[in-house]
Amino acid sequence: MDLNVLRNISYGMFIVSSSREKALNGQIANTVFQITSEPAMIAISINNKNLTHEFIKASGVFGISILSEEATFPFIGKFGFKSGRNEDKFKDVNYKILPSGCPIVTDYSVAYMEANVINCFDCLTHTLFLGEMNDSAILKDGKPMTYDYYHQVRRGFTPPSAPTFIKGEKREPLK
Amino acid sequence: MDLNVLRNISYGMFIVSSSREKALNGQIANTVFQITSEPAMIAISINNKNLTHEFIKASGVFGISILSEEATFPFIGKFGFKSGRNEDKFKDVNYKILPSGCPIVTDYSVAYMEANVINCFDCLTHTLFLGEMNDSAILKDGKPMTYDYYHQVRRGFTPPSAPTFIKGEKREPLK
Repeated sequence: MDLNVLRNISYGMFIVSSSREKALNGQIANTVFQITSEPAMIAISINNKNLTHEFIKASGVFGISILSEEATFPFIGKFGFKSGRNEDKFKDVNYKILPSGCPIVTDYSVAYMEANVINCFDCLTHTLFLGEMNDSAILKDGKPMTYDYYHQVRRGFTPPSAPTFIKGEKREPLK
Repeated sequence: MDLNVLRNISYGMFIVSSSREKALNGQIANTVFQITSEPAMIAISINNKNLTHEFIKASGVFGISILSEEATFPFIGKFGFKSGRNEDKFKDVNYKILPSGCPIVTDYSVAYMEANVINCFDCLTHTLFLGEMNDSAILKDGKPMTYDYYHQVRRGFTPPSAPTFIKGEKREPLK
């Protein structure tokens, strides 16, 4: 078995967001997928230990910002390598609050979606949330960032909490 | 709500394969993603009406070939727009049979994975199969084909049975 094979699976780069009462949080995610077309349902995989997981469980709603290739490393680092338990990730970023209370990050985002959780599937360390899309809009022209672009062009790194982390990962974080 | 947003989600291009006794089948899929890193678990979304769905249910095993950018339109069409109920899709293609009996298409494939089904999650018209990877290997050098590349460069089309079909889809099939 060769775990390097997993690096050949293509993904996008997203911020998955949610809220609990007035508190907002969001995190970088790669595993965002359309599952059915009618109704339009989206699945996301979120680490059970993440604050965003708690917020999605509490609110039953999640937002997705589809990041553009223009997203900077500090911006991705803010949402990808830090916990909302230690800092307010929404400080100094542009976002909007949807009627549900769910925040949507609009910086470096070509489009957003919001979904109501229909089901939660237990996958050991992670949960697959299945959501029915109830709101979405294009935010600006731009090319969606792929996970491959993040790694190959931006020399990005993957944290161990991500579904797509590979044990023995040799990629180095940006110096 | 703007369904065009869904086109901004990045995917790869894969053949998901399985077997039932001596019968082999496979189909094009976009929704293949790593869910956990330890153990390495993969999720796939398959239309409940597809023969591959029947075979995965029967055998409890699925294979994944990660297609390269070199994959031709006739090759993709064979696995994407035809049913194994009407023809033997493995005729005239190169493949290997793993010890489980699961076939792996090796033409135009940079790598393969095989997984044992751990759980099946009902998603209305589709099923999310969660599988633990038990075999995988790199087959050759090459760039994995993305769904965007298939659409933008190859001018490919999406069948209505796919998870990623968008109602009102205006893309035209290759003439």
